[in-house]
Amino acid sequence: MTANPAYEALTIDTLPTRLGQVAALTAQVGGGDWQVQEVGDGNLNLVFIVTGPRGKAIVKQALPYVRLVGDSWPLPLYRAFFEYNALTRQAARDPGSVPVIHHFDETQALIVMEFLEPHRILRRKLIDGERVAGLAAFLGRFCARTAFRGSELSMASPDKKADVALFAGNVEIPAITESLVFTDPYYAAEMNSHTPGLEPVIARLRADVDLKIRAQQALQRFVSNTETMVHGDLHSGSIMSTADDSRVIDPEFVQYGPMGFDIGMLCANFLMAFFSQPAHRGDDLADYQDWILSVIADVWSTFEAEFRSLWQSERTGILFPATLFEDQGHDSAPACDAVLTGIRRDAWTVCGIEMHRRCLSLAHNADFEDIEDPTIRAPLEARNLMLGADLIRTAETITGAEEVCDRARGYNTTDVI
Amino acid sequence: MTANPAYEALTIDTLPTRLGQVAALTAQVGGGDWQVQEVGDGNLNLVFIVTGPRGKAIVKQALPYVRLVGDSWPLPLYRAFFEYNALTRQAARDPGSVPVIHHFDETQALIVMEFLEPHRILRRKLIDGERVAGLAAFLGRFCARTAFRGSELSMASPDKKADVALFAGNVEIPAITESLVFTDPYYAAEMNSHTPGLEPVIARLRADVDLKIRAQQALQRFVSNTETMVHGDLHSGSIMSTADDSRVIDPEFVQYGPMGFDIGMLCANFLMAFFSQPAHRGDDLADYQDWILSVIADVWSTFEAEFRSLWQSERTGILFPATLFEDQGHDSAPACDAVLTGIRRDAWTVCGIEMHRRCLSLAHNADFEDIEDPTIRAPLEARNLMLGADLIRTAETITGAEEVCDRARGYNTTDVI
Repeated sequence: MTANPAYEALTIDTLPTRLGQVAALTAQVGGGDWQVQEVGDGNLNLVFIVTGPRGKAIVKQALPYVRLVGDSWPLPLYRAFFEYNALTRQAARDPGSVPVIHHFDETQALIVMEFLEPHRILRRKLIDGERVAGLAAFLGRFCARTAFRGSELSMASPDKKADVALFAGNVEIPAITESLVFTDPYYAAEMNSHTPGLEPVIARLRADVDLKIRAQQALQRFVSNTETMVHGDLHSGSIMSTADDSRVIDPEFVQYGPMGFDIGMLCANFLMAFFSQPAHRGDDLADYQDWILSVIADVWSTFEAEFRSLWQSERTGILFPATLFEDQGHDSAPACDAVLTGIRRDAWTVCGIEMHRRCLSLAHNADFEDIEDPTIRAPLEARNLMLGADLIRTAETITGAEEVCDRARGYNTTDVI
Repeated sequence: MTANPAYEALTIDTLPTRLGQVAALTAQVGGGDWQVQEVGDGNLNLVFIVTGPRGKAIVKQALPYVRLVGDSWPLPLYRAFFEYNALTRQAARDPGSVPVIHHFDETQALIVMEFLEPHRILRRKLIDGERVAGLAAFLGRFCARTAFRGSELSMASPDKKADVALFAGNVEIPAITESLVFTDPYYAAEMNSHTPGLEPVIARLRADVDLKIRAQQALQRFVSNTETMVHGDLHSGSIMSTADDSRVIDPEFVQYGPMGFDIGMLCANFLMAFFSQPAHRGDDLADYQDWILSVIADVWSTFEAEFRSLWQSERTGILFPATLFEDQGHDSAPACDAVLTGIRRDAWTVCGIEMHRRCLSLAHNADFEDIEDPTIRAPLEARNLMLGADLIRTAETITGAEEVCDRARGYNTTDVI
């Protein structure tokens, strides 16, 4: 976990020389003349597209600091190791859901992986008003399969404990979530920023002790609940899609955490896409907003159906064993319902918190940030903040995604500020 | 984690030769002529008292199998490593609560520690009708301090994650708890046994799907909630007392787990002592039973008072930071209440499960086992089983220990079978 003197950041000029002998890369792109582009638009890493005579590949390399902030915020290179390990587990738990990995170099914190084409970052597609067929089913399955198959519902207990120990080494990256997501929105943290005009809404959030308690209870579960391996950063910027194909990328925030974490953060990002649409769409606004809400509803219906299906077919771990239920002539469906109730509670709480942090903390999202006029942006963000607070306060009693979509429609026509 | 060829179990004959040069031991007992007794009456280990010219010491050595069952049930020696690490943390988090450690030999799975005298195992004292002054305050403080100081309420997040990773290596011993405690009571597991006459009560427990769901939800929290470092086996056989001094021993079941786990298991063992008393006492029955219940109530009042005090004075971790509460002019006491509510829910659920497993699974406790006549034993165990079920079913709404004590009094005068 110490600085590695052999590490050196790649550049578009040094990459061909330094990686020219990596067989797994030349097998993909062919040897000889390579074109190299640096396309990392995220907050943390270098991302290169390598184009050779036979094809393309992605080279992703961790930087030893937060790119968004600069070298004043160091960040360990070992996150590439955790990203690699997360990708291999996600590929096993939901085959085809993540890019194919061709090569991993731990010393250089570098992963060579499949170049997805013509995939684009889903967040951009949502801003542009594009639809993705099969998106909800893909995401619902991904969340259900990774949640179920990374838990003691499915895994052997010793394997799970070994995995928890392994990923507990991913310290600094989850620590970003711990502060930026769960805590910073609720006080005047140094790196916070917000659109002018939101001050009255922010004041209401910070005055709400009950809300802050619920957010911190969610943080407690985030840091000390190892139910399953979570992606940890599953927003629309971590999904790449074509018109009808999607993949999940960038699991460097991986950790063991609550089963509801990923789906909760995911839905928050769809809700923010929803609330931001009036600034991005024309005549098709209502239709497109309806489509976004239908994605949220369908993510959940797929998630629950897939989770119930795995419950019946793959419940081989120590939790809720058949010896206590089926073998005694008892249906275990009510037990599955109880587990899903806990997942919903965690998910909607995280959802609300994510909706807050993306407008109030560091690392805002483009759905709102691309709205240049703050007098247009602020009222839309205010609706988003208010629904987020609603969700946190009432997460325990929300019956399902349809109820959340109804509330979103309500706020979408309400002038909060 | 593999078998260690250098390991050799000590005997009373080989111990003086093999440990005669261990300075930490000779410093305690003096050199020269030693008397060695083997006194291990537990289920897992060798325990020697070494008496020399200057004093006494305990030598505890792990055996590579479950002593209670024999070498057909192997158990890794590395548990001594985890016991040693647990003892050092408990000593730091609640000074004076555990025996002083003089020496640790990882290869021989051996700990040399303070000989406690005239301490006796608390369970024997409870069977014999002896009182221990200060017991409740000692145990309430121990549970509160270890719970609080081993959590992110107090610990720095990276230290906590490193500790979670370390103790995740303790696999086989917690696995005993996972099956014997949480699951085996609720089906006809191979190693189960019970007193004849309990069959109708057992049938009621196993027919109660809701109860089994709640027990398995508690198992899920036990295996995937790393709130704090728990002792993991805090029953009256893991406490040694004089008339007015107590220590906690034997933390080899250590793991990170729910903050309510230890206090819940502890209270179960006091409740079993309570229900078994009619078979052990004469004229002093009512008085002594009242004293046991007063211990339960006082353990909780001390626990909550100490937890609240630490909340105010030592809340230096990432959870519920002052920036969100005190610094904004908001009292954080309601947040502490919310955390305590969760602890109570977990504790009373575990309490009920422990009351079940000690009568139905492997490893019964002497409180009941010492009652030779099964026609006397069964009705007392039945009361215990019924209160246990009550606690599991209602754990979320129990207001406090006084309410549990009232229910215990009720069952104490009820003929269940």
